Amino acid sequence: MRILGIDPGLRRTGFGVIDYDGTRLRYVASGTVVVPAGGELSGRLKVILDSIREIIRQHSPDASAIEKVFVNANPASTLLLGQARGAALCALADLDLSVQEYTALQIKKSVVGTGRAAKEQVQMMVQHLLALNGAPAPDAADALACAICHAHSSVLATRLQQAGSQTATGFGLRGTSMRRGRLIGLP
Amino acid sequence: MRILGIDPGLRRTGFGVIDYDGTRLRYVASGTVVVPAGGELSGRLKVILDSIREIIRQHSPDASAIEKVFVNANPASTLLLGQARGAALCALADLDLSVQEYTALQIKKSVVGTGRAAKEQVQMMVQHLLALNGAPAPDAADALACAICHAHSSVLATRLQQAGSQTATGFGLRGTSMRRGRLIGLP
Repeated sequence: MRILGIDPGLRRTGFGVIDYDGTRLRYVASGTVVVPAGGELSGRLKVILDSIREIIRQHSPDASAIEKVFVNANPASTLLLGQARGAALCALADLDLSVQEYTALQIKKSVVGTGRAAKEQVQMMVQHLLALNGAPAPDAADALACAICHAHSSVLATRLQQAGSQTATGFGLRGTSMRRGRLIGLP
Repeated sequence: MRILGIDPGLRRTGFGVIDYDGTRLRYVASGTVVVPAGGELSGRLKVILDSIREIIRQHSPDASAIEKVFVNANPASTLLLGQARGAALCALADLDLSVQEYTALQIKKSVVGTGRAAKEQVQMMVQHLLALNGAPAPDAADALACAICHAHSSVLATRLQQAGSQTATGFGLRGTSMRRGRLIGLP
């Protein structure tokens, strides 16, 4: 399964593409869509829309995951961020890609093991999990972390489903790995 | 000039198309894009994206105008509204339509003459200005009002430009109609 992760923002939108075969994670690509400051809002949103569509065309992901953004204390900033996120979601939906949303807490728990992880810890764990030579830039790291979270979440969902069907034939759902999976916050 | 006006929202996005020849307004079409409640956010945004693109293809507007939305007291609502507005802006930008943004205050001043106009007054004035048999539904009326505001604003911009070039050759900018235009809040 190839997963595209997105960390949306009006100025900088991070993206990361990984492959996951159910056991191993493999890095494919990552980067940041940088939107020039100033100019009409619609034009700036179009940069996000076009860039993400281009990334999808280049890498043909099977699924996508996007970070649920922070609601900012400043309502005007929240509105701007919402519009940028809307543009990113439009690009994903426009090319018929399934989208899962994860909070920063879910992503950090899934990648670092704790929801209180610092940005640097996320970068370090992403570098480690994808066996990269250096730490990716913050926005790209967040996007890759989002994709990794989706990979973990998908395999857990599959295992829970299997465990569920086993329950019907006499097996329990209380295996340690399942409970551990839930403890580290995979939804 | 054919103008598409948009009143964005996640559940209901109003649209209105008018023609304006610099003197007369003519109604072309209007309606509401109703997004089914529930389901994935990306799918809901795609309904807005696809619907507005379809409206543009059907009516081939030369320009568009969109209402600057209210920043809601509830940050989560503001974020949702931002995403819906982002989808609408993406549709406009995706088909290379120029977009102007107007606040509710600007629109009401332009259509009713006062920024404190009630929703019903806007509906009534839109019906009157476009010589409609009945009042359009609220979302459609707001979208039509936004398009009318853009028509007024464009003609004023042209006149100011003409007055500006006349100033260079000895004519003043202080004509009553100009000042009145600014007084009623056309940007």
